[in-house]
Amino acid sequence: MKMLADAAMKRRECDLVIKNAKIFNVFTGETEKGEIAVKDGVIVGIGTDYGSAKFYDAKGRYALPSFIDAHIHVESSMLSPEEFAKLSVSHGTGTIVADPHEIVNVCGIAGAEYMKEAFSRIVYGGVNPLDVCMQLPSCVPATPFETSGAAVSAKETAREIDRDLFFGLGEMMNYPAVIGGDDEALRKIGSAKEKNKIVDGHAPALSKDALNAYAVAGIKTDHECVDADDCREKIRRGLYVQLRNGSSAHNIEENSKAVNEYNYRRFLLCSDDRNAYDLSEHGEIDDGLKRLVACDIPASQAIACATLNTAECYGLKGKGALAPSYDADIVLVEDLTEFKVSAVFKKGVLVAENGRALFSASRYRSNAVAGTVKIKPVSADDFKMDLSGDARVMRAVPNGILTEEEFVKVRSEEGDVVLPNGICKLAVIERHFATGNMGKCLLSGYGLRDGALGVSVAHDSHNLVIVGDGNESMARVARLLREAGGGMALVHGDCEKVFALDIAGLMSSVSAEEVIAKTREITELARKMDVKEGIEPFMSLVFLSLAVIPKLRLTDRGLIDVEQFKIISSIKESL
Amino acid sequence: MKMLADAAMKRRECDLVIKNAKIFNVFTGETEKGEIAVKDGVIVGIGTDYGSAKFYDAKGRYALPSFIDAHIHVESSMLSPEEFAKLSVSHGTGTIVADPHEIVNVCGIAGAEYMKEAFSRIVYGGVNPLDVCMQLPSCVPATPFETSGAAVSAKETAREIDRDLFFGLGEMMNYPAVIGGDDEALRKIGSAKEKNKIVDGHAPALSKDALNAYAVAGIKTDHECVDADDCREKIRRGLYVQLRNGSSAHNIEENSKAVNEYNYRRFLLCSDDRNAYDLSEHGEIDDGLKRLVACDIPASQAIACATLNTAECYGLKGKGALAPSYDADIVLVEDLTEFKVSAVFKKGVLVAENGRALFSASRYRSNAVAGTVKIKPVSADDFKMDLSGDARVMRAVPNGILTEEEFVKVRSEEGDVVLPNGICKLAVIERHFATGNMGKCLLSGYGLRDGALGVSVAHDSHNLVIVGDGNESMARVARLLREAGGGMALVHGDCEKVFALDIAGLMSSVSAEEVIAKTREITELARKMDVKEGIEPFMSLVFLSLAVIPKLRLTDRGLIDVEQFKIISSIKESL
Repeated sequence: MKMLADAAMKRRECDLVIKNAKIFNVFTGETEKGEIAVKDGVIVGIGTDYGSAKFYDAKGRYALPSFIDAHIHVESSMLSPEEFAKLSVSHGTGTIVADPHEIVNVCGIAGAEYMKEAFSRIVYGGVNPLDVCMQLPSCVPATPFETSGAAVSAKETAREIDRDLFFGLGEMMNYPAVIGGDDEALRKIGSAKEKNKIVDGHAPALSKDALNAYAVAGIKTDHECVDADDCREKIRRGLYVQLRNGSSAHNIEENSKAVNEYNYRRFLLCSDDRNAYDLSEHGEIDDGLKRLVACDIPASQAIACATLNTAECYGLKGKGALAPSYDADIVLVEDLTEFKVSAVFKKGVLVAENGRALFSASRYRSNAVAGTVKIKPVSADDFKMDLSGDARVMRAVPNGILTEEEFVKVRSEEGDVVLPNGICKLAVIERHFATGNMGKCLLSGYGLRDGALGVSVAHDSHNLVIVGDGNESMARVARLLREAGGGMALVHGDCEKVFALDIAGLMSSVSAEEVIAKTREITELARKMDVKEGIEPFMSLVFLSLAVIPKLRLTDRGLIDVEQFKIISSIKESL
Repeated sequence: MKMLADAAMKRRECDLVIKNAKIFNVFTGETEKGEIAVKDGVIVGIGTDYGSAKFYDAKGRYALPSFIDAHIHVESSMLSPEEFAKLSVSHGTGTIVADPHEIVNVCGIAGAEYMKEAFSRIVYGGVNPLDVCMQLPSCVPATPFETSGAAVSAKETAREIDRDLFFGLGEMMNYPAVIGGDDEALRKIGSAKEKNKIVDGHAPALSKDALNAYAVAGIKTDHECVDADDCREKIRRGLYVQLRNGSSAHNIEENSKAVNEYNYRRFLLCSDDRNAYDLSEHGEIDDGLKRLVACDIPASQAIACATLNTAECYGLKGKGALAPSYDADIVLVEDLTEFKVSAVFKKGVLVAENGRALFSASRYRSNAVAGTVKIKPVSADDFKMDLSGDARVMRAVPNGILTEEEFVKVRSEEGDVVLPNGICKLAVIERHFATGNMGKCLLSGYGLRDGALGVSVAHDSHNLVIVGDGNESMARVARLLREAGGGMALVHGDCEKVFALDIAGLMSSVSAEEVIAKTREITELARKMDVKEGIEPFMSLVFLSLAVIPKLRLTDRGLIDVEQFKIISSIKESL
């Protein structure tokens, strides 16, 4: 500590001084011209005329505290932690609150351990370029209607949340359980609170008494607000509202209407789910800032949402501001409208410049997340559906992830349904324990001809989701996915294509550039199979087994009516 | 936790519902009409139509979160913890951050233990009406030029700060040591940070490099800002600024000029030193709110300074807001300009109404704080000063606590100075270990004829301070103080008067009403001794040995030149 005082008092040389910066002060909203002096990874002063071993000329750019992503599922990028970190850091992120909900649903706690270890091993210039606050997922499995790779009980939660590994409890999606007073859900929350760890929320449009009941449990955040009124009510009841800049789910434009000069301290920026292309091309929190400012939120308030507010909400000491005793996590940006990042420092070490990370890291390999696609051998016959009469059909709605229910008259030939025009088959195959569980239903509104597509990413249990118009091609897709250890697979006549997601069937260990290129390549091939306009060939499949979004979903256990919250038949019930 | 969810969802009766309230929301700055529902001491909902075992009709009054006093030396009220709590709570205070700096300088850690225990024993309706976050004083003794009753080293600090007893480290007044890189001071701060405990500051007008050095140590607050510019600079460097509403030291009027809609979250309200009369007649944080709003700070921002901001600064979970999961610490006030408190709830229990505490508590007695005035027997001769020539005289400046230096020609008769007109003697007698240490000097600007006054409250070491124009009356005052175990004493001709401060020589165990009456009585007697206009007879003495305020001070070791920071002679040095 004496060294820091000495450096602050100019009795000793600093390690780094960033000169000619417009230093944004998140406590006052002002910008000061001057120097940021760094010693031992910590900001020791804002001032002038420091002596230093190294100088960095900011050339008049703005210096901001590094951004904090308040809530992200890294797995949704399909990138390895190492590749994710490169993109994230190059866009100015210094800290993420990561909820490894996907990988823990596949691999259990070992999935979180893998993520943390992989991030920890990224070291450059003696520092971790990205700080990761890892949440313990609260909803594993997410619903009782599906087979996930692991289950984390309240008892296990109580044990795990005490580990340094875990920063807090991840988004409590099961809000019906919380407001219903369900013992298991409340015990999970209770264990986190007992250890003084934060509990994240997920409560779209929860209101009035139900919101009171959700908040009284001690849940502190929500990233699912459906509109500005929803935000205002959440803020009133003491939740922090996370403005989401995901790849499919954005709510900044609408929800920023609730931000004002009094309450801005209660808003945070987050990504939630963001794909590699968006991370690479548009960025992460930097992109959120740009959007927020484009919505006429003053830059000073927007920056607080990306920095100080998040640090306060999560109790991140030394983060979120440029001031003495704070970590020297500093981003230089060109302006406060586009927020184009030109340099990123982590604890005083330059870790990214001009949009490129300066570090790289070899992949951390763990058996815990390899070879996770375990299915019983499948044949074309397994995809037969002996349906006749009024069949219940899941209808994919374009430009979103909702589905509808419709009924179509069908007939069966040789024990298999004859697919009417515009309808294909959807199958979900359990892939964690090779149980042979398979759910099947009819799907309309999707398009697709002469083949099949499949993925091993399928919220939240990540079983195999396969769509096709032929049993043989669907079986071939299942086999391709098994062989690749998961990924995206396509069979179109003779053409076979697979992009392996070798890490838990969720993420790839290739470079970000390759992930983007390969995803685009296989998606373009799928487009040639006449998938309908407004439907993302693979990405829409990812949500078709998410049994919490209306109306119909398919899991390995069967077809789910989400509103009734039960498994239903593929044939219309006689009244 | 299930009970709370059940109450929030109206599946179960609440314990208390406050009806017809205008509920101030410190997250949004809005006021909502409705009910506050309480179960198990916690707010379970803001809404309507709750069932409850009890109802309280707020009759349209405003409901605010109970106030938090960010920094107070309870000892300065001269009240026992029990009597202090009654006044504090009746004025809407729910939590105080108490720095027992005075009593620890007299009694050591046992003094803090006494305070905590005395507060803890105040129980009413199953709750402690006042939550007390006890700081471990950082500067015991405050300077090397005086004999205090105890010393708390860095080593002892490291051990003590780990105890549940202590919430954080009290104001680090020794800023020269901090910015100078002094090992002992930095180790104290380091121990607190290691245990994740907050460190309070005290750094009047500290600026630029020195402020950087002070802040880099990790000090988080300052209540000594001298003006709005000082506030702005402290805020920029990451400190929270505490607006002070003490009895002698106010800075709200000036410092509130620095508060604006962006930075208001960084300001807190505190009392620091507040006497019983002010606490009783004007209040505590309620009075601070009134003053802040009178300075044109919007009530919504002012209330945040008294509640949420302080809770955030000090990490007080469940405090500072009216929202589900927060403690039911609720104040009803008539309006948002005068903030007249009409009812106070603690964890859902009504603890004060119409300015009166509903609880009382018998005094907790502890030997650790009794009989603390230990002096060697004194006689009139001990007050002799054999001075002749150009004598250095301490000049009391009216309406403040500064002193000046002047030189007056004096002569000696029979080994004692002949007091020139308008000059009396000042003596400080060590009273902790009966060492016989006595400092003496001449004092002008004070007035006083035909007797002597003395007190055992004397910042920061609390030795006996006696002023008088005759050796015999000064000796009598010393004896009166010894017999009373400390207090305020007066000898005026034949008249003798003493008001005992039997708790550590700092506080009285009588009721607040008596403390106020007796203080007034003895002060009025002193006024008759021709103490000058603008000089508070006893209260000005209290600061005459505070060896950190310019220009001259007297301790038991001798006369101190504060600017030179050394002991000097009572006779002008020859050049």
